[in-house]
Parts: sequence; structure tokens; C-alpha cells
Amino acid sequence: MLHVGIVGASGYTGVELARILAGHPEIRLTVATSRQYAGKPLAEVFPNLRKRVDLCCENLTVDELIGRADFFFTAVPHKTAMDIVPRLLDAGKKVVDLSADYRIHDPAVYEAWYQEHTSPQLLGEAVYGLPELYRDQIRNARLTANPGCYPTSVILALTPLLRRGLIDPATLIIDSKSGTSGAGRAANVGTLFCEVADGFKPYKVGGSHRHIPEIEQELSLAAGAPVTISFTPHLLPISRGILSTMYASLTAQGNSVDLQEMYETLYADEPFVRVLPAGTPPSTQHVRGSNCCDLALQKDERTGRLIVMSAIDNIVKGASGQAVQNMNLMNGFPESTGLMGAPFFP
Amino acid sequence: MLHVGIVGASGYTGVELARILAGHPEIRLTVATSRQYAGKPLAEVFPNLRKRVDLCCENLTVDELIGRADFFFTAVPHKTAMDIVPRLLDAGKKVVDLSADYRIHDPAVYEAWYQEHTSPQLLGEAVYGLPELYRDQIRNARLTANPGCYPTSVILALTPLLRRGLIDPATLIIDSKSGTSGAGRAANVGTLFCEVADGFKPYKVGGSHRHIPEIEQELSLAAGAPVTISFTPHLLPISRGILSTMYASLTAQGNSVDLQEMYETLYADEPFVRVLPAGTPPSTQHVRGSNCCDLALQKDERTGRLIVMSAIDNIVKGASGQAVQNMNLMNGFPESTGLMGAPFFP
Amino acid sequence: MLHVGIVGASGYTGVELARILAGHPEIRLTVATSRQYAGKPLAEVFPNLRKRVDLCCENLTVDELIGRADFFFTAVPHKTAMDIVPRLLDAGKKVVDLSADYRIHDPAVYEAWYQEHTSPQLLGEAVYGLPELYRDQIRNARLTANPGCYPTSVILALTPLLRRGLIDPATLIIDSKSGTSGAGRAANVGTLFCEVADGFKPYKVGGSHRHIPEIEQELSLAAGAPVTISFTPHLLPISRGILSTMYASLTAQGNSVDLQEMYETLYADEPFVRVLPAGTPPSTQHVRGSNCCDLALQKDERTGRLIVMSAIDNIVKGASGQAVQNMNLMNGFPESTGLMGAPFFP
Amino acid sequence: MLHVGIVGASGYTGVELARILAGHPEIRLTVATSRQYAGKPLAEVFPNLRKRVDLCCENLTVDELIGRADFFFTAVPHKTAMDIVPRLLDAGKKVVDLSADYRIHDPAVYEAWYQEHTSPQLLGEAVYGLPELYRDQIRNARLTANPGCYPTSVILALTPLLRRGLIDPATLIIDSKSGTSGAGRAANVGTLFCEVADGFKPYKVGGSHRHIPEIEQELSLAAGAPVTISFTPHLLPISRGILSTMYASLTAQGNSVDLQEMYETLYADEPFVRVLPAGTPPSTQHVRGSNCCDLALQKDERTGRLIVMSAIDNIVKGASGQAVQNMNLMNGFPESTGLMGAPFFP
Repeated sequence: MLHVGIVGASGYTGVELARILAGHPEIRLTVATSRQYAGKPLAEVFPNLRKRVDLCCENLTVDELIGRADFFFTAVPHKTAMDIVPRLLDAGKKVVDLSADYRIHDPAVYEAWYQEHTSPQLLGEAVYGLPELYRDQIRNARLTANPGCYPTSVILALTPLLRRGLIDPATLIIDSKSGTSGAGRAANVGTLFCEVADGFKPYKVGGSHRHIPEIEQELSLAAGAPVTISFTPHLLPISRGILSTMYASLTAQGNSVDLQEMYETLYADEPFVRVLPAGTPPSTQHVRGSNCCDLALQKDERTGRLIVMSAIDNIVKGASGQAVQNMNLMNGFPESTGLMGAPFFP
Repeated sequence: MLHVGIVGASGYTGVELARILAGHPEIRLTVATSRQYAGKPLAEVFPNLRKRVDLCCENLTVDELIGRADFFFTAVPHKTAMDIVPRLLDAGKKVVDLSADYRIHDPAVYEAWYQEHTSPQLLGEAVYGLPELYRDQIRNARLTANPGCYPTSVILALTPLLRRGLIDPATLIIDSKSGTSGAGRAANVGTLFCEVADGFKPYKVGGSHRHIPEIEQELSLAAGAPVTISFTPHLLPISRGILSTMYASLTAQGNSVDLQEMYETLYADEPFVRVLPAGTPPSTQHVRGSNCCDLALQKDERTGRLIVMSAIDNIVKGASGQAVQNMNLMNGFPESTGLMGAPFFP
Repeated sequence: MLHVGIVGASGYTGVELARILAGHPEIRLTVATSRQYAGKPLAEVFPNLRKRVDLCCENLTVDELIGRADFFFTAVPHKTAMDIVPRLLDAGKKVVDLSADYRIHDPAVYEAWYQEHTSPQLLGEAVYGLPELYRDQIRNARLTANPGCYPTSVILALTPLLRRGLIDPATLIIDSKSGTSGAGRAANVGTLFCEVADGFKPYKVGGSHRHIPEIEQELSLAAGAPVTISFTPHLLPISRGILSTMYASLTAQGNSVDLQEMYETLYADEPFVRVLPAGTPPSTQHVRGSNCCDLALQKDERTGRLIVMSAIDNIVKGASGQAVQNMNLMNGFPESTGLMGAPFFP
Repeated sequence: MLHVGIVGASGYTGVELARILAGHPEIRLTVATSRQYAGKPLAEVFPNLRKRVDLCCENLTVDELIGRADFFFTAVPHKTAMDIVPRLLDAGKKVVDLSADYRIHDPAVYEAWYQEHTSPQLLGEAVYGLPELYRDQIRNARLTANPGCYPTSVILALTPLLRRGLIDPATLIIDSKSGTSGAGRAANVGTLFCEVADGFKPYKVGGSHRHIPEIEQELSLAAGAPVTISFTPHLLPISRGILSTMYASLTAQGNSVDLQEMYETLYADEPFVRVLPAGTPPSTQHVRGSNCCDLALQKDERTGRLIVMSAIDNIVKGASGQAVQNMNLMNGFPESTGLMGAPFFP
């Protein structure tokens, strides 16, 4: 039994980690921290967990944490993660960090989009935790940087095309839509029910969302050359789900390949990536509550563009589910342990 | 491996049965019928099931069905169930019937609320499938009549009170609210998104909903005398969930008992019934996607009334989850097999 | 042109007042206060008002306010209203107060449910602003206490029955459900989108909601004797709307009257009360965005109880629309001026 | 008083026409047709209209219709419109047609996307009913072809740029999202509440949506050369609202102009077009229930692209509100009569 801790359990990724781990046969959740709710049962903060998770929130120092588990999920805001992760590693623990702090390989890029990095030496070591791309490295990692939700939905969809030169990266436009859980659980007028329900809007338009450098890093690695994207996030009046609609011009090469067949073959053995039949767009409804990523491709003959679409549950494959998938790999468990539940519909 | 069939797989209870059974370690889903979608993969009808359920819908006669599984869920409308269930039993199969056809013990009552009963001889044998009340009988049943969604939410909440004479049954008022999946998947103007979203309304007001005789049967058995209820269902703009708010005057006896403690003790060992701490009302959000039933009690000192509240997911504990719980009992599997997943939040 | 001010314009009742007043031909909105947004155009705080309301939020003392309008809506929290209203009246202004501070006639009752009252001398003068009951008194009032949202939905529904002794007040149970705008616009985890969407729950169960004394005051006046109610509010995952389902035993008298006809006759000339045909329950969808209150009656022959149902838009008839209706009466404008817009559907 | 008729009153555009016309001071709604609901009061079909619209649905021949009104809205499906409109015109009536039948100037294009056109002679005469572009022609029209909902949201946003050569039309990508009322009121599994709520998905991907030729016609006219677009519609889990996010590369010219100022100036006097301040994206919540179209522009300096965003209420500015705006122009009423209501929020 691996003893596992959640640092920062009171957000939506925290409760989802606890939910998934409650059904995981190889681990025991031994500690969950929350400054705000210290002393309260986690199942009182999140009543869905009653009779399923029996643990109190604690407010612990890193030193105290170390003795309480062998493996940690850090589900705290960026910058806070940098204060904790290096010390957990120093104590010999393995970590999946759900913040942005270790996703960007280049410290200068990190600092341009976030702030000063206090443990840049770890950026070379941390593995970008997208198992479908970096499975082998994750198996051997001490520190896995769990991808952002938007980046997961985009990178799984576009990497095969960029690696093979099938689309022109200069034409890439990514129009993404996310459920409101992505905005977190902080009290905030902008995410009140009445401000979101029955509405829809873009935000951080024009190249300012902090997931851009992360997406560009991975797409550039796939393309073998720097890629700059147009990326527009939107806020959906749903709790869970991201759908990304991506546009690019096909290259001559791209026009000569059966892309549908290529994707079906490539992802055939992946338990969590589902390539939909031609002509079937994905829906966030069909991945809800699961670790699945649904992909679809559609050529627009009138314009010579390819439209690639992907759907994930932003707090499962886009956060906590993927984090458990990474934990499985890092500890030699079968990769899909605890994660094979089918999406729930309706 | 028990071979299991779903008769009527194309509705919301059908897809939920398939979802739950896909994660059940003791059974194999070997057949799923649907006239409308015959020949189509079930995962094409319900794309949430892709890569999790690999089965085509079939249009089969009862004779054909018999050879295809050992255990059947009949998830067809009432009246249709009567045409199928007796023949499955005659062939030596066990059945959980999700329709109303075998829930009412008294054929005259059934016929007053529904229509002629064509196999009244089975009404005496069929067990009312509420495991928390009839666990032992279900273990030995050939035919279990899976309870209705509203009745489940009401009977689990009120039985302990009525059995002990703690409330006055003549004062019972039940105000229930259900998510829209309860209305089924038939094309219907009344359940279009635009007719339900951002709205709320009662329906079948004044004693006309067909779950009334079922509720009254079980409450009368608990009370040891005929109980007549006021029951008003309402339609909620959510997909899953029932919340029932129940009112009754406390008897002298009821006023002298610590009801909170009594409920906590009674339901302590039930894996799916969760008695909430005093002062904590239930929410459909906290049971979503799970087989849980959350209960809460609140005395109104000003009026001497007790308010009992319950929340379930209407297509899990109110239908398909409870059906699997019954299947587990009827086949000697641990009762909670495949059903222990925590609710999804948010 | 009456010059009108809104004190406390940054909440949901404030923006709705501004929206309604923007289309009112007899008045000019000359001042809107908000401490938080002082200096900002109201149309920047609430972009729905762009090109329709051209006014900046201001942070003003009461002395400054006095010179800026002839008529005031105070849309501030209770207790704050008591600090402002008496001084506006002293300066010769007329006021509709949307808080609870002047709704309760008996200072002892107010103080039992709220806190000390600092201007109890006004409680005798203030008129309870339900025009369908107190039209004549409102016409002559300096101070109208705008009713609460739940009370409006209940009192319009039950008063005709209680006045005539047609139901037994001791059996009254009121199960109400409100949209989330009723919880206001303060940043609050409990009303975040993800905490409300796709969910439903009761709150303040067991006789603790502060609208109870207000409802009981008016029902007692109607009945001519003290009435004590069971009242349970619930939170709906919709922005606007209250639906109340009310239960009571019919008296012998009540059983002998054609209640449907009585209601149709009574409310025939009311522009905002719509008695629905027998067998047609109300829906919040059909009153949304309007000042309408829809009523329906249904007898339950099995139990001898009457079920009365009402639906309003909680921020129109339950707050800002009714406030404008009161303003119209207090200033000699036709009562329905600016308020005759039909509800939006879908 | 202009006597006005609605042909096809039982859909969502029909009820919205009736709602708007109920508050219009210059007209009287004298006839409303519906085959399905013939004989029923319109306010029974749509209870929001009770006490506001007093008219029965009728099933009338065109000959019968002619005597009943002077002006007609045809709110029937395309193809059906072609059977009715020419005969209304022959009888000397004026018509706003809400179908697609008279929007496309080139019969060959119409026939490629729809079916044979039976009154192609009218295509040259019909005016495309976007008042902000064709106000003068509409004033003199007998027949106005009311624009589609998606086209309205796109054309108002892009025309100023294309007319001035500020963007490269070959790079135009339009990602649009629509509320579910756009799918109409027919009983249909795909638009049931449970199939839409808490979900999001694209549809008709890859250049197949029938609004494409209409958008391209108007954008080509603006650009002075043929424009081919990538257009992807998506289904939002809201009732009302369209938000379009549009991407194009700026030309050298486009890079040298202050686009924000240009838009503010251009649309300054339009009552229904609101150019939002720089950095403020539009939201469907802020136009709901109104005839407004909100526009915003954002340059992405990293890619040299311009992002243009627009929000409308699809059944007001995208259908019935714009139809009334056209009626006003065609009859010499002030253009905004009956349409100045502010959007409702929340």
C-alpha cells in the first residue's frame, strides 16, 4: 500500500483527487492539507465524500508532511508549489505537481509569464506529465509536472499532425471553451452562479492566457520548430469539461494522408484517448467524470483547412485523473488503475 | 462470471446500467436489446461508453434472449415488462425488473393506477427491491421489483419513523423534486432543453402520480395501518437527482426520542445510506453519479413538525444502481460490488 | 418628470431597478449610489445597461443624496436601511425601502428576528407594499416597505383563502424554491456556479428563515388570528424565479366553494396576477423577467387538502418590479407603467 | 394602427414576435397561425403570454390570411415560406420573411445549399434585412428577408473591416456558439434537456452549415471580392444567445488604423450595436432578451491576428427583434419602436 498525501485538498482538484483515490486499490490516502479547513473532516468540506473518505484536513509544515506519506500530490497555486516541492523531493518523496511551476522547461519563459523561479534547477528534471507522450520518462521521474487542462486538450489533439508536418503551424488557431470548475473554488463575483449561468463569454483574449507558453512548448517540440498560436479561452456555463476547436491549413503532405485512419491507429491502444468515427464531433457530455480525451478530425474541403476537436473533463484528464495516471506510472502500477470508470451520461 | 442481459438498453436507465456493469468484476454484459437501435453498437448510441462497452444493440424475441444470459435487467416501460418477465422466469432466469409492473402487491391497486395485470400470480412472489428493507428476501428472490425513484427517496427516509409510531401518518406531506432524466429519453416538447432550463414547476399535482400507490404500500407496511399521503412532484432543471422534503407532526413518542441518534445508529452500517449531521440539509450535488441516499432530519419547534429530507441520484439509487445492488444480493456477490464509487462533485 | 434615486445600485435588485426605470416614461433616474463602484459608470458594472443607462455610481452621504432626487429606492441590506430612510423622509422625500426594516409592524417581532430597531416610530406609518392588498394605503404613503420575495409568492396565493376561512391555518405547510439571485451578489463560495449548478437543496430548515415573521404577519391579518407556518426554502439552479407549493386542509366551508372561480373573479382585473386554468401548474419559466405572479389551485380529493402554487420572478415581482409598482402608486402614475412587458420565454 | 399577422406562431420565433409586438404601440396583432395548435389561445400554447396576448391560433389558407392583416411575418420553415410569400405580396401585403428563402441573391447558390427555388424572380427584389447595412433599401421594400442568427452576429462584426481592406479575407475563421433555442421547438432527442445540459459540442463541422452561403454573400459584398470562410457552429447549454469569435490576419492597412476608435465612431448612433471598451469581451448574458449586438475587438500582437467578438440574443436581434426593426422601417415607424428594452441581467 502506497501512502499518499494531497497538499491543498480544499479546491476542486483536491476533492477530485480524493474521490478518485478513494477507489484506488493500491494506495492509501494518509494525509490531506488545507489551511482554511484545518481540523475539519474532508467529508464535511465536501459532503460527496462522506462514508468514502475518512480523513481530517490538517495544516502542516513541510517537515510534518514528510513523515505522513511516501507520495504527494501538490494541488496548490503556482508559486506556492515552488516552496514545497523541492523539499519533498529532498526528503526522498515522489511528487506530481498540479501547478504550473514545473511545466515550462525554460526558466526565462516561465519568468516571462509567471514570476521568478526559485528552483530552476528542477526544470530540467521535471517530466511533463502527459503519459501518452512521455510515458517512459514519467515511469522514472521523481517529479512530474501535471499538464494544464487546456494544454492537455490541445496537445493530445495536435501532436500527431505537427510531428509529421501535416499542418502548417503558422496557421494554428485554437478556440477553447472550459467549464467553470477551471476557475477554482475561491469566492469571486465573476464565478457566482448568476454571473455564469445561461451565459457564455471569452476571456483573456489576444494571447494573454498563461497556458499559452505551455502549449507552445509542447507543440514546438512536436513540430521541431517554434510554434506561435492564437489561443482564445471561453467560459462555459457547465461545471466540468473543456472542448477545444482547432484550425490549421493542411500541408501538401497533410492532404495526401488518411488522417482519420492515422489517428485511429496511433491511439488504438490508449485506454483514455478515443478517436471518434469520421463525422462525429466530440461532446463534453460524453467524457464527464472520466479520464477520457475524445478526438475528432474534419477536413473543410472548401478552405483546405483541417478542424481538430477534442473534449476532456477538465478536472479529470485535465487535472486530477491525469495526476493519478502519472502516479500509477511512477509507482509501477498498471497505468489505468482506478481510472477506468466510464463517463457518466446524462 | 455471471452473464447478464439488459432488455431495453436505449433509455437513460439502460445506459446507466451499462456504465455501472462495465466496472463490475463479477459479471459480463452479454446482450443488450433495443428495437430502435438494433444493429448499432451501444457505444454509438451512447458515446460515453466508447472503449468501455463493446456490444451491439439487438432486437430479439424472448426465446432468443433466453440463451444469451443468465440474469436479466428489464428496463422497459410498464406493461411491456409483463410480456417479458414471466417468460424469462419460466426459462429459469432471475430478473430485476425496473418497471412498475411487479412493485404493487395488490393487483386491484395495480389495476386502479395502471391497467389490467396479465401475471398477477407473480405479485405475491416478487420482492420489493429496496435492499435496506428487504435484503434477506431479495437474496432468495427470482424476481425483484426495482423501486421507483421517488419511492426510494421517500421510503428510506420515513420507514424508521412510521415503524416506531414517531410521526402521525395522517399529517404526511411529501414535496419531491426530480431531475429531468426521470422523464426518459423519448422525443417530447415538454422535456426539450428550452422548456426545462432555467425553469421549475410542479406536475401531476393533487394525488395523481403513479408512484403514490407504491409509496403508500410501503409506508402502510411500516406504519402497520393504511397511510394516505399528499405527494407533489416537481421538475428540476438538472439531469440527475431527486430531493424530497417531507413534513409530518411528531407524536408524543416522537417528541421524546433523539431522532438524529436513532437514524445514525440505524443506518450506520449501510454502505449507501448516509445520515447527515444535525443541521446539514442534503443536496442532490453530493450524491450525483453514486448509489448513495443522503438523509437529514430537522425538527421545527415552532410547529411541532418534523422535516425529513432525502437526496438520491434518480438513475443510480433511484434506478440502475439499486438494480445492480439487487443483482448482487440475488447472486451472492458482496452487496456493494461495483457501486462504491463516490459521488462526483462538482 | 419625477427625479428618482437608487441607494445601493450594485446588487441584483439595483441593476433590475435600473433596467426597469430605463423604460419608464414618467421618471428620470438621477442618482445611483454604490460605495464599492463609486466613480464607475453603472453600465460598466452591469454591461447589460450600456446605451440604456447613462449614470455613474457615486458614494454619497444622505445629505448629498437629498438634493439629487425626489423619490428614492433604498436597495441596501437591512440595518443599513434604518440609517438612511428616516433622514430621507425627514427631508420630505418619499421612499420605497426594499430591505426588511419596515415590513414588520411589531418592533418586538422585528427585534426577535433581526436586531434592535432604531426608528420604531416609523413601523406604524410604513405601508406593507403589496399593491394587490394595500393599494389605497400605498397611494398615500411616504414610506412603503417593499415585501420580501418569498412573502410575495405566499401572501398573494393564500390571503383569499384565509380571509374567508376556507383553509385551516394550523395545517399550513409552505415549501418554497428560489433562484440563486435571491442570495445576492456578494462573493461567496456557497453561491459559486459550481456549488449551485446541476444541484438542489433546502436551507434554513425548521423555522429559521427571516421571511417567516413577515409571512405570518400578513397571513395572520388575513385570517384574523395568529397563524404559524412551516416554511422551508430551497435553492434552485436558476437565476430568477420563486415557486411556492403550499398545502393546507380545507375547511367545510372551503369544500363547498368553487375556489377556481373565486380566484379567477378576485384577480380578474389585476394586471400582474394571473390565475391559471384548472389543472395547469405554474412555472417560473412563464413569469421570467416580468412583474407577473401566476397562481394555481388543486384539490387533492384523496387527502382533503388543497395545494396552492405560485410563481414569480423573485427580482421583479419579488423585488424591483413591485418596488416600481409601489412608486407608481405613490406618485399617481398608472400602476402598471413601465411594467407591462410580457415574460420572456424561452 | 397597423394590422399585423404572424404566420407560424408556434415556434420560438413566433412566441418572441408575439411578446415584442404585445408592447408595440403602433400595431395590432390581428392573426396568428399554427396548424398544430389551431383553435387554442396562443397564451395557452405559451403561458408567458397570458393577459398580454389575446388571440387564438388559426389554421388558415393564404386567401383567408390576406383579409386579416396588412403586414405579415412569415415564421415558417424554408420552402414553406416560398409557398406563401409570393401570394401575400401579390395581394399587396408587405412581408418580413424569417426563413432562408429570400436571403440569397443568386438562385444557383440557393439551390446548391437548399432546394429548387419556386419564386426566383423575387430574389432580386427582396432586401437583406440587416438594418445597419441596408436601412434605406428596407424602408422601401415590400419583402425583407430577415437574416439568419449566425449571419447577423458575423456580418455586423466583420463588414467594417472587409469594406476597408483591413483584414485578409482568406484567413477568416469563424467559431460560433449558439443557444439551443436556435434548434427550434420540434420534439427531438438531440435537443432534450438531458442531451444538452451541462454539455457542449460542435456540429455541422467542416463547411456544411446552411448559414455559410448567406454569410459569404454579405462578406463578399463588403470585401468587393469572393470570400470563403471556415465556419464552425457549436451548441451551448443556454436557451438564448450567440457568441461568435472571429479570427483574421490584419493587413498592413489594418495594422495602421485605430480599429477600436473606428468601430466606436461607426456604430455610435446605432441604437442596437454597442462597441465595448477595449479589453472587454462580450457576453451573451449582457444582451439577453434585447435587440442589442455587442462587439469587441482585440489584437493579438504575438500573431498579428485580430480577434473580433460579437454577442446577440439569437431570437431577438438574431430573429424576431430584427424582424420588428425591419417592420418599423418598412412602415415609417421610428426604427427602435418597441425594441428599446434593456437586456435583463442576471
